[in-house]
Amino acid sequence: MPTDTPLKNELPLVDVFESPDRLLMGAGPSRVHGDVLKAMAQTTIGHLDPAMVVMMDELKDMLRYVFQTGNVMTFPVSGPGSLGMEACVNNIVEPDDKVIVAINGVFGTRMAEVTRRAGAEVIVTEDEWGMAVDPNKVEAALKANPGVKAVGFVHAETSTGALSDAAAICRLAKNHDAMSIVDTVTSLGGVPVNIDVWGADAVYSGTQKCLSCPPGLSPMTFSDRAVQATLDRETPVQSWLLDLSLVASYWQGDAKSGARTYHHTAPVNTLMGLHEALRRIVQEGLKNVWARHKAASDIIVAGMEEMGFSMLVDANIRLPELLTIILPEGIDDTAVRGKLLNDHRIEISAGLGPFAGKLWRIGVMGEGARPENAERVLRAIKALIS
Amino acid sequence: MPTDTPLKNELPLVDVFESPDRLLMGAGPSRVHGDVLKAMAQTTIGHLDPAMVVMMDELKDMLRYVFQTGNVMTFPVSGPGSLGMEACVNNIVEPDDKVIVAINGVFGTRMAEVTRRAGAEVIVTEDEWGMAVDPNKVEAALKANPGVKAVGFVHAETSTGALSDAAAICRLAKNHDAMSIVDTVTSLGGVPVNIDVWGADAVYSGTQKCLSCPPGLSPMTFSDRAVQATLDRETPVQSWLLDLSLVASYWQGDAKSGARTYHHTAPVNTLMGLHEALRRIVQEGLKNVWARHKAASDIIVAGMEEMGFSMLVDANIRLPELLTIILPEGIDDTAVRGKLLNDHRIEISAGLGPFAGKLWRIGVMGEGARPENAERVLRAIKALIS
Repeated sequence: MPTDTPLKNELPLVDVFESPDRLLMGAGPSRVHGDVLKAMAQTTIGHLDPAMVVMMDELKDMLRYVFQTGNVMTFPVSGPGSLGMEACVNNIVEPDDKVIVAINGVFGTRMAEVTRRAGAEVIVTEDEWGMAVDPNKVEAALKANPGVKAVGFVHAETSTGALSDAAAICRLAKNHDAMSIVDTVTSLGGVPVNIDVWGADAVYSGTQKCLSCPPGLSPMTFSDRAVQATLDRETPVQSWLLDLSLVASYWQGDAKSGARTYHHTAPVNTLMGLHEALRRIVQEGLKNVWARHKAASDIIVAGMEEMGFSMLVDANIRLPELLTIILPEGIDDTAVRGKLLNDHRIEISAGLGPFAGKLWRIGVMGEGARPENAERVLRAIKALIS
Repeated sequence: MPTDTPLKNELPLVDVFESPDRLLMGAGPSRVHGDVLKAMAQTTIGHLDPAMVVMMDELKDMLRYVFQTGNVMTFPVSGPGSLGMEACVNNIVEPDDKVIVAINGVFGTRMAEVTRRAGAEVIVTEDEWGMAVDPNKVEAALKANPGVKAVGFVHAETSTGALSDAAAICRLAKNHDAMSIVDTVTSLGGVPVNIDVWGADAVYSGTQKCLSCPPGLSPMTFSDRAVQATLDRETPVQSWLLDLSLVASYWQGDAKSGARTYHHTAPVNTLMGLHEALRRIVQEGLKNVWARHKAASDIIVAGMEEMGFSMLVDANIRLPELLTIILPEGIDDTAVRGKLLNDHRIEISAGLGPFAGKLWRIGVMGEGARPENAERVLRAIKALIS
């Protein structure tokens, strides 16, 4: 091959990118602790290095702890939360399966779309955005559609800040001999997630919310029943990368020897970061982490209400880690968020879908969930709107 | 929701993970420069932060430079190279399309499997592992199968170290009104990749080979013709995450205003790393980078031949960045590689598939492709086998 092909696009050299100082108090990514960033910046090693394999085993144990599960098949998918969603749906669902997806926001809508693309016949239940998924509607759908393969829902809707009753919905699915597919992207590490108590089957999350790790991985856990269902499939999983029966050779290894083999090249450095982020949670203790989220969130709720804002979601189903705050008359959404970012170095998020321009989403996630950050957000908003 | 569910799996705290010192001279990941690691370890910022959007635009320009293309649709997919493969195949291919995949190693085999899972009728051409793809076989398959939608092949087979004639195969595809799908995972940045001269349509790569960046992203470029084909599809792309018509809202933005909107949360920190890795290539100049790979590789080839090893691949199609080296009688594959790793801190890779135990794969990629690293590998091997 000739190496003297004339080159085009000789590029002017751009400057080194310098990440601006930000306090991330939006819908994610959340603030990341320096120790996690430091862990990520270590020497890259091989994805089958013996040291890597030890680290992966520790990481899986820590994921089981945050998921509160004994599931063997627990590991992070090499991509964002949306890839974790596809991993769960595509391993469980086969073409023409009937699947119920409960929609009460953007991410339930997305799950329904992903499930349709997996070739399933999707039956949706719908609840008003800002409300929890109504288990009665799910039960009615199960009764009306015998032979449903799975029920999918979002535990913590990032678009609305509403928490649904995962235990109740998983139990309904099980009672009707259906699998449960559960999105815990915004709940894991922020509120109790208890996979074994729920009896949940295929569950995914993200690293960039309450786990306080940079985005790029989707922690996932499969019950033994869900693993068996993927092994019993009649059709191959659409995605080769996400096919559990293949990726297990890397994350679990040979059934007898435990020896790991190459499947794909996992994001080694991001995994090192996740290892440290999980270590910090283990060190603090899950209950303390949940309590810290709640305490910091309460400060923001009280402060915003005092300034005349109101909450979209009722207190009994309100996610502490993702507050949806209705804008009173006279607040210029874009202008205030812009000044928060540019003048105060604080990111909060806009409303999604029907809530665009109507509410703010303030994230109180991971390292962001500390009283001093909550106070800083309140001070900045107060300064901008008074 | 109760927050006092009894916790199980209270975990003993594991130690901070300390990445061992390694010189990565295997099939990837490759050695990463400290500046790239430092860039990755910067403060995480929002995936729609205005600073992020500027950085993304610079990153796309630099990708166009390394791909040697003017393609508008050029960006990194948020996952490993195998996800990039699925992105290319799944956007181009619709169920029941006829697709030719040329197989001359592990990754062509994988592409055929991915294409079958996309619902296509796959016609394979086969060449001996260690040989280039034979364009005559591709042409014969095109002639024998009118109406083929696409021709897929691997430019640089990581399993064998053989380089194929991408220009010739892309031209054949075009002459038969078929798209080309090209794997440049191991070639990009190591040998000339010239997308526009080839007239290639859907092309993916990886970051952890000759670009010398940690794994986790798959740079991708689509010709205008390939973009149009994805817009003209009759069926939705299997994967919601990979659907170009959706992900473009984040990487390209609104057609009129350029405003970016949320699609998925991209791996912000890994993107910062890639920005710096590409900046280093722009600074050095692509031709110099290719020449550096060749020079370091030549040192290893000469040294290994002197020690009695022989090369699997003929010099005219041999990848400088991935050398497949046949083991002479009496060399204990596992023992020597183990000692290289443990005593000399050097990783090289084993043979894959039929080559397991029969050859080594020495990578001369990115930061690894420097004379001092080549010499260090030779010294260590010499010490172990003499």
